[in-house]
Amino acid sequence: MSAHIRNRKLMHLAKRLYSNPAASESSVKLKPRVLSGIQPTGIPHIGNYLGAIKNWVQLQDQFDDVLYTIVDLHALTVPNDPKTLRENIYKMAASLLACGIDTNKSILFQQSQVPHHTDLAWLLGCICTLPRLQHLPQWKEKSKTSENPGIGLFTYPILQAADILIYRATHVPVGEDQIHHLELTRDLAKIFNNKFNFNFPRPKDIMGEGPRIKSLRNPSAKMSKSDVNPKNSIPGISYDPESRPGISNLLQIHAAFTNETVENVCEQCKSLNKVQYKTKLSDIIVESLGPIRQETERLLSDRHNLDTILGKGKEKAAIITENTWKEVQKSVGLL
Amino acid sequence: MSAHIRNRKLMHLAKRLYSNPAASESSVKLKPRVLSGIQPTGIPHIGNYLGAIKNWVQLQDQFDDVLYTIVDLHALTVPNDPKTLRENIYKMAASLLACGIDTNKSILFQQSQVPHHTDLAWLLGCICTLPRLQHLPQWKEKSKTSENPGIGLFTYPILQAADILIYRATHVPVGEDQIHHLELTRDLAKIFNNKFNFNFPRPKDIMGEGPRIKSLRNPSAKMSKSDVNPKNSIPGISYDPESRPGISNLLQIHAAFTNETVENVCEQCKSLNKVQYKTKLSDIIVESLGPIRQETERLLSDRHNLDTILGKGKEKAAIITENTWKEVQKSVGLL
Repeated sequence: MSAHIRNRKLMHLAKRLYSNPAASESSVKLKPRVLSGIQPTGIPHIGNYLGAIKNWVQLQDQFDDVLYTIVDLHALTVPNDPKTLRENIYKMAASLLACGIDTNKSILFQQSQVPHHTDLAWLLGCICTLPRLQHLPQWKEKSKTSENPGIGLFTYPILQAADILIYRATHVPVGEDQIHHLELTRDLAKIFNNKFNFNFPRPKDIMGEGPRIKSLRNPSAKMSKSDVNPKNSIPGISYDPESRPGISNLLQIHAAFTNETVENVCEQCKSLNKVQYKTKLSDIIVESLGPIRQETERLLSDRHNLDTILGKGKEKAAIITENTWKEVQKSVGLL
Repeated sequence: MSAHIRNRKLMHLAKRLYSNPAASESSVKLKPRVLSGIQPTGIPHIGNYLGAIKNWVQLQDQFDDVLYTIVDLHALTVPNDPKTLRENIYKMAASLLACGIDTNKSILFQQSQVPHHTDLAWLLGCICTLPRLQHLPQWKEKSKTSENPGIGLFTYPILQAADILIYRATHVPVGEDQIHHLELTRDLAKIFNNKFNFNFPRPKDIMGEGPRIKSLRNPSAKMSKSDVNPKNSIPGISYDPESRPGISNLLQIHAAFTNETVENVCEQCKSLNKVQYKTKLSDIIVESLGPIRQETERLLSDRHNLDTILGKGKEKAAIITENTWKEVQKSVGLL
């Protein structure tokens, strides 16, 4: 999707937000503010890049006020080796910067280093009922697969809500899997506002417009970092997500990398066999990601510089959270 | 119980702690530190005074390192009018000072004002399983009476654990009803220590040695702030908690106020009828609590002074929590 079309869509979103009085009474007076978070999984895979980060880079030019956070506290909801986690926070920070997150255009920070995310999460937990969390689809799924799920895994949507509301963010770029959690965030904002006469905006989602990249080995699943085994039999290159999920997934990746339509890409490559096509796509990806990878390595070689960059982001973010938290405390009677 | 016997009991406790290698491997090297919290319920009732506060005052002289906190974040687990809560925090602070909490001997602070209680609570939530909380007796009780219990009410024992562990407290004066929560605290300390090679002490309880004061209207229930209707028929004064819970409760209160045994008090008052006895006890209580009440009012008339006192407590407490939180972050890989 071109930057032009994307801009039009955002303009439309903004127009809806400002013209519909029923949409969000309290966010009407607020300047738009974008916030999004990413887990410190280390070097992002292609799915992260095309699904979220590329979009993040563009949003920096479409909004004046943009915050991106590496949500390390969320990473602790599942077992994580401390040394690996520490490394992965650096790797994610370096990768984001290498991909084009520009700290002159957005605030980049490490969640755990900014005060009051967990303070607000505590307060939101006090107004959120147990059944509300139990009925979240993602929890239903997760609690099925884990015999003794942790409290963190259960309550993390509340911390997510706090991550957003502590900045009074109005727009949140999310994947489909997070739609229910943003709905919870809006609900908690509404309950809190009513109960304590407060003014949290009820944040809108900005759905990522990049393709939802499927696993290369199991293209019917969303891409994740650990997958097994492929299979295919139809020859040549054609786009048909139903009967040819594997090649269709590759064509989507291809189109996203070259900023073309899938139809154009098909037309260009229809004469290739699969091996030739994969080689071609691989070259395209290497060409696009090569410089990013190099820049990531360069940034990773200077930890002190990364600390400084994240430290500055923390300071800017903390000014906002200190302010919101002070107001929140006055509203609930702590101050 | 005399200060002498109390001191002997504490010496015994300390001895056990330091001589039993199996008791608490990691607290062996730690200086004893007492921590306890009280909810901001406003002016304490007699049950609070005899059950906790009197004990707190004495502990200040028995330990070098003592912290007391007004746990306002816990107050938010149930509906609380913001203005009332704000007032009640001041009232509790003033009452504690008036009762003899001495900020030269102990650190008195407002929980919400000190950073990292909720941060550590988040981390502890990530290592605590859902069933562990679900099986706590207090939760079983509470979730029966509430149709839509809040997450805060469910997870508050984890915040309690964080309140204790963030200070590396070794001794916690608790009532019987909190024994299971202190057990959870010890379990979480152990799990965290094992998982992250950390050194949280596993805090011991110091059971309050004052009488567990029963409701004056319904002496078979623990005293709380809202109760209904008495009844009794046996004449005269005698101590028999089973068949005469009402008068026995009064005798216990009496003995606690005058620092005598219940037997002594009975002997002194056996010739009185109930009306005479109640008048006498009422005089004793008024005489004991009158000066405390006056001092409370005096302190309450200068909010700026109370802010200063709590502000100094906050600063001292924050030095400890910043330090623990930094170490915790390094252990889990956030720093």
